[in-house]
Amino acid sequence: MALFDRITIVGLGLIGGSLGMAMRRRRLAREVVGVSRHRRTLREAKRRGAIDCGTTDARAAVRDADLVVLATPVDVIVPYAKRLARFMPPGSILSDVGSTKAQIIRALERSLPKHVAFVGAHPIAGTEQRGIAAADRGLFARSVCILTPTARTNRRALRRMAQLWRRLCGSVWYLSPSEHDQLLGATSHLAHLVAWSLVTTADRRALSHAPRSWLEMTRVAKSDAGLWDDIVFSNRTAILNAMARFDRQWHQLRALLTRNDRAGLLRMLRRAQAIRNAL
Amino acid sequence: MALFDRITIVGLGLIGGSLGMAMRRRRLAREVVGVSRHRRTLREAKRRGAIDCGTTDARAAVRDADLVVLATPVDVIVPYAKRLARFMPPGSILSDVGSTKAQIIRALERSLPKHVAFVGAHPIAGTEQRGIAAADRGLFARSVCILTPTARTNRRALRRMAQLWRRLCGSVWYLSPSEHDQLLGATSHLAHLVAWSLVTTADRRALSHAPRSWLEMTRVAKSDAGLWDDIVFSNRTAILNAMARFDRQWHQLRALLTRNDRAGLLRMLRRAQAIRNAL
Repeated sequence: MALFDRITIVGLGLIGGSLGMAMRRRRLAREVVGVSRHRRTLREAKRRGAIDCGTTDARAAVRDADLVVLATPVDVIVPYAKRLARFMPPGSILSDVGSTKAQIIRALERSLPKHVAFVGAHPIAGTEQRGIAAADRGLFARSVCILTPTARTNRRALRRMAQLWRRLCGSVWYLSPSEHDQLLGATSHLAHLVAWSLVTTADRRALSHAPRSWLEMTRVAKSDAGLWDDIVFSNRTAILNAMARFDRQWHQLRALLTRNDRAGLLRMLRRAQAIRNAL
Repeated sequence: MALFDRITIVGLGLIGGSLGMAMRRRRLAREVVGVSRHRRTLREAKRRGAIDCGTTDARAAVRDADLVVLATPVDVIVPYAKRLARFMPPGSILSDVGSTKAQIIRALERSLPKHVAFVGAHPIAGTEQRGIAAADRGLFARSVCILTPTARTNRRALRRMAQLWRRLCGSVWYLSPSEHDQLLGATSHLAHLVAWSLVTTADRRALSHAPRSWLEMTRVAKSDAGLWDDIVFSNRTAILNAMARFDRQWHQLRALLTRNDRAGLLRMLRRAQAIRNAL
């Protein structure tokens, strides 16, 4: 059963493209409209079944949408939202899939027109790849979507977005924007920065002989630097806090090794192993 | 074609068990004998096809072996080698599969009897699991085995071990013991320590919501703390060097973020991404 009449996806990369494919397959909208600046992307999105039709004219595409999802890089979510919201019909929902939330939502709650309900969303799914060619209709399956309502969020719009994402991901969690950013800062964002540091630490010789554990731990370092630079700076405070916490653990480990404290190292590794095994 | 008449594997855990299964399947020895302190492990190894027969009597098991492979935790490779070598027949080969090499080989070259040829080996394969139950005859497929000859290594024994591991892994690399330890210290060992630090950094809430990137990067933190404590301390110098190099990269990243240097961060991420993409 269609939950929406017309859903417009702005940005047809890995996430926007996969979202279109998953929604069309589950018939969650009568029509999925795609917006991209590039005609080639629109053709590819249509060919892959990610959209029913596409356009480079974002204003025209949002005019009759009851849901607009911004699936652009995080640094342009706010400017796109501001430019497009006034053209959206009364009662329609504006949402996003951005990897950070607090900065975006703070900016939008100050500036969006009242006739549009904004709901912040972040499906915890993705790969190190980007672009419509990497889109996958199963990307969200058995994942989770975090919705980040605030006191100002329209409850009816929130319920409809929860329905949509529950159908796509399986589960939906609710966190405040800052809880979301702290959580992602301490896990995904910290892990990406560690991976990039691991890569620049290894010398050329080591790289050609790298074992599977190292390759696995640095896979995310293949993620697009341009996209991640924006993500990191839009969640700077939470990430700096997480980096400081990591530093304390890391220096404790280094100190145990420096002073040859075998019992201390074993205790620390056992504790970490137990935590990770429990997941 | 059998390369050896009787191969004795001392220690039937993940690596020893997988080695027996792979060698028996490829008929690389006329007979594979297993040694374990636990009868239950011997029964399980026999049932899983990892050995032709097993015993708790290591001395008896090495007496007629033309190859003995020590597949024990790294901290007991040297004591086992010293205890068993004198019972091995003249012209036989003693080898290991330990994760570190310099300390072990230094100790053994000083103490082994001349009638036994020692060849250091380390197949770069494994998982975070341990024990015969986790053994897998495909563990070494499409991996690489590093052999670590020194000036004292018997060339004929080295050639025979290269033949054996090429059949098991596909490829064999030659590194000096210290090159091996620096390579593994800067990749696998460093990555494990980073994973344990990532786990202890995350708070409980984050753990229950952890995204796939974080779970993937911390998988190796499930590795056995007791085994790894030994590995880390037997490669302490190389690991401390790698940790210091990682620290420099990490603090540079943290400094870029602290002083809001977007251009600098983007340059560093791009460089790391390019290195990782090239692999």
